[in-house]
Amino acid sequence: MDISKFSELVSLNPKSTIPLYKQIAGILTENIKNAILPPGTKLPPERELSALLGVSRTTTINAYRQLEEQGLICTRVGSGTYVADLGPITKTPPAVPWSQLFAPSVNIQLPSILRELIYSAAAKDSISLAAGMPDPSLYPLNDFAQFFTSQSSFLDGADLGHTPTEGYTPIRNILSTMLTEKGYGITPENTMIVSGSQQGLYLIAKVFLQPGDYVIVESPTYLGAIQLFSNSSARILSLPSSGPLPFDLLEDYLIRYRPKLFYVMPTFQNPNGRVMPLEERRELLRLAAKHRLVIVEDDPYGELFYEEKPPLPLKALDSYGGVIALGTFSKMLFPGLRTGWVVAPEPVINRFALEKQYIDLHSSNLSQRLLYDYLHQGLLDNHLALVRTEYKKRRDFVAGALKRYCSPHLTFSIPAGGFYFWCSLTQDILTRQLLHEASKTGVSFVPGEAFYADASGAHEFRLCFVTQPEERLLEGIKRLSKALQVLQTATPLSTAERPAILPLI
Amino acid sequence: MDISKFSELVSLNPKSTIPLYKQIAGILTENIKNAILPPGTKLPPERELSALLGVSRTTTINAYRQLEEQGLICTRVGSGTYVADLGPITKTPPAVPWSQLFAPSVNIQLPSILRELIYSAAAKDSISLAAGMPDPSLYPLNDFAQFFTSQSSFLDGADLGHTPTEGYTPIRNILSTMLTEKGYGITPENTMIVSGSQQGLYLIAKVFLQPGDYVIVESPTYLGAIQLFSNSSARILSLPSSGPLPFDLLEDYLIRYRPKLFYVMPTFQNPNGRVMPLEERRELLRLAAKHRLVIVEDDPYGELFYEEKPPLPLKALDSYGGVIALGTFSKMLFPGLRTGWVVAPEPVINRFALEKQYIDLHSSNLSQRLLYDYLHQGLLDNHLALVRTEYKKRRDFVAGALKRYCSPHLTFSIPAGGFYFWCSLTQDILTRQLLHEASKTGVSFVPGEAFYADASGAHEFRLCFVTQPEERLLEGIKRLSKALQVLQTATPLSTAERPAILPLI
Repeated sequence: MDISKFSELVSLNPKSTIPLYKQIAGILTENIKNAILPPGTKLPPERELSALLGVSRTTTINAYRQLEEQGLICTRVGSGTYVADLGPITKTPPAVPWSQLFAPSVNIQLPSILRELIYSAAAKDSISLAAGMPDPSLYPLNDFAQFFTSQSSFLDGADLGHTPTEGYTPIRNILSTMLTEKGYGITPENTMIVSGSQQGLYLIAKVFLQPGDYVIVESPTYLGAIQLFSNSSARILSLPSSGPLPFDLLEDYLIRYRPKLFYVMPTFQNPNGRVMPLEERRELLRLAAKHRLVIVEDDPYGELFYEEKPPLPLKALDSYGGVIALGTFSKMLFPGLRTGWVVAPEPVINRFALEKQYIDLHSSNLSQRLLYDYLHQGLLDNHLALVRTEYKKRRDFVAGALKRYCSPHLTFSIPAGGFYFWCSLTQDILTRQLLHEASKTGVSFVPGEAFYADASGAHEFRLCFVTQPEERLLEGIKRLSKALQVLQTATPLSTAERPAILPLI
Repeated sequence: MDISKFSELVSLNPKSTIPLYKQIAGILTENIKNAILPPGTKLPPERELSALLGVSRTTTINAYRQLEEQGLICTRVGSGTYVADLGPITKTPPAVPWSQLFAPSVNIQLPSILRELIYSAAAKDSISLAAGMPDPSLYPLNDFAQFFTSQSSFLDGADLGHTPTEGYTPIRNILSTMLTEKGYGITPENTMIVSGSQQGLYLIAKVFLQPGDYVIVESPTYLGAIQLFSNSSARILSLPSSGPLPFDLLEDYLIRYRPKLFYVMPTFQNPNGRVMPLEERRELLRLAAKHRLVIVEDDPYGELFYEEKPPLPLKALDSYGGVIALGTFSKMLFPGLRTGWVVAPEPVINRFALEKQYIDLHSSNLSQRLLYDYLHQGLLDNHLALVRTEYKKRRDFVAGALKRYCSPHLTFSIPAGGFYFWCSLTQDILTRQLLHEASKTGVSFVPGEAFYADASGAHEFRLCFVTQPEERLLEGIKRLSKALQVLQTATPLSTAERPAILPLI
């Protein structure tokens, strides 16, 4: 069709309230439907059409887009735009292309070894020594139930409407007192209740980190922290944590990279159980003050000690004011409360509260209300005494069983607190091999690789000794031993089992 | 000092394990402390020093940075680097500059009018008709308490450890059944439990929106949605919502801007109470399917109807699969549960779950567990019947009182459901004036401006009629009437009371 004909076909009214692109689309629609522009007709390119009609290119683009959406025209790449073959109009609209609509994000694919773990742990009759969870049979649920039975009007509606984002005020007060007794120099305004300390960590990442920022973590460290920081597109600097902190390397990081944060667990480190000695804590704080380093001190296990009390937390020793502390009731009581806390200077708490408002307005006040009563009645200390005794027994029991059943193949040290044995396999066995065999014998654990930001940990793994009662622990270790024995007689892992990175061509 | 002397002073050992910058810093430190380089000595610029020593510029930068942090040298802008006057070393480290460490964010400052509201609502004896909260005296807390008293082993530890991020499985099942009965064509895999529907909205913003993306909202709409979308740096397109949806404008938006989402409350809209008729819902879905528009349907009030049942939700009518639905137990039961839900196609739920894992692992399973029992025992229907009756009475009571006490100054229509009267003041009264007077007489409400993304709403406000019992509602309206009377005799608001935008010079 001669392009000049278009100026006859399309006559526009610039004074109309109908936008120009709609006028163009409307006229073309009519002509297509009346077969004045039959199927297969090539339409002028947008640029030519806009010159011809004296309108902007945006106008013709929008007009064509509308026609295309109505299925009246179609674009063939490299060829042009044509009137479509309408056929019988029974087209169902294409499905929504969800993944194309998602904002790009760092895709933290769990390593296949971890996915294998998840499936094997879910298998029936499998004994999980993987999850870091207190023993459900020790949850103080009778105490919680008693609040209801002892007082008929125990729950007051006024406490169960909306509460401040920073937390239910009575629980902030009692938490502040608890922490002051531990040496923190704080007021309730320095505390904030979060939905598990995971949410505290999320807020820290959200408020402090921009893509490309540096974060220092111990190596190994809590796997959720590695995933969260990676998801924030931060760059992770690893600091070996199996022995004393390498202060030279740390200072080197501080000078070279100016990291935003150092995420550290000084007490019963997860996974390796290490306790940072008092003098090392002081040295760390001196260095932090000098470089104005912000320290994130995660302390979920500090009250779960089985020997003498651990040294004061960094937050209690901190005189320069750069420590943000995270804590939780998940390990002391039970995870289902989803109640943890952040302690920080007021400007930081204020900023966290602004962000948390967008996320969930505030944490469950049903949990906060029940927990308040529990703490207020002074029930926590007794419970801690009970679980310390029980978990210490299980620790010693597991240490004995590991020595007896698995001894030549692995080494470990005995943790003075916390939930975990951190085991090293003799160098000819890979954790991934062991996990594979263990899933067949019916026991699971977390492979070491999950705790490293780099590819380390191939010969290490973590066992949780608190979740199961002794007879299950024993059975689990026997199954582990069986898996180890199978590996002794097996041929060594062929290189083919380590997936190579193949170029995509 | 002659710059060439530096090559004599600083002799480096390239084979040492000590990094070069540390060697340089060490040698200079020694010379400064021994006053070979006395205070005030000008040091060579980094570029010259690196040429002189044959090292990279990064090396000299890092060396100087370390010296500067130790307080041994200082940089004067535009002049150079000098050996510092050390003086007596008693410097306390400067406070941590927290706000400089925060990642930049859109600072959604609440308009001053809203801050005034917050303070006035907090005043003692003030009657709040502002917050959208059910009446605490109607929360079914006795039912919740009964679970504990009736069964001694009601709570099972196994339910209170960690549960799946998508929600406690039994509650997802029962929710899916509930929603299927309402016409949703879904399975439990399409549901996800969130910490209040606010968290659902947060996940939607997090997963779908990138800075600059367009989002359509009704105008007026839920103020939390405006703040959240603004905080995501999305661009907001407003669609008037006081009458039938303007489909021409909507289609215009869809073609021109290709918005990512349309956030809409078709049933008992907050704040204006409107119910979108069935045929309009169908038309909206047709348009959405045509343009593959993703609709976010927020429906917190659908079960709180006081006349006939409202039409089916969009999600139930949706045949093309592009509707994401949000719901909550906060308005039906009580906000302190922090339990809401999202219904969406599986790929969307999977992506939401990945994000939620970082945020809080999962929602409170104490809340989920108790709520499950409540729903499982079929207690919700009776409770809804009770509150519908009670809230309907309050609605009619408030309508009467508003007519009697405030009639000449404001107009409103009677909502068929939900929590709010949406009032318009006669054109010579501004809501901000009224709020100011009302805070003196002791009553509060939400001014209209909060519900608009643009600067509209100066003559409108929202009254919640469900939170207070009748005598308090009456007293609140009398106080409102008193404030209106004061305004009648007052001089008109001078322009000075509207803060002008002054250039900062």
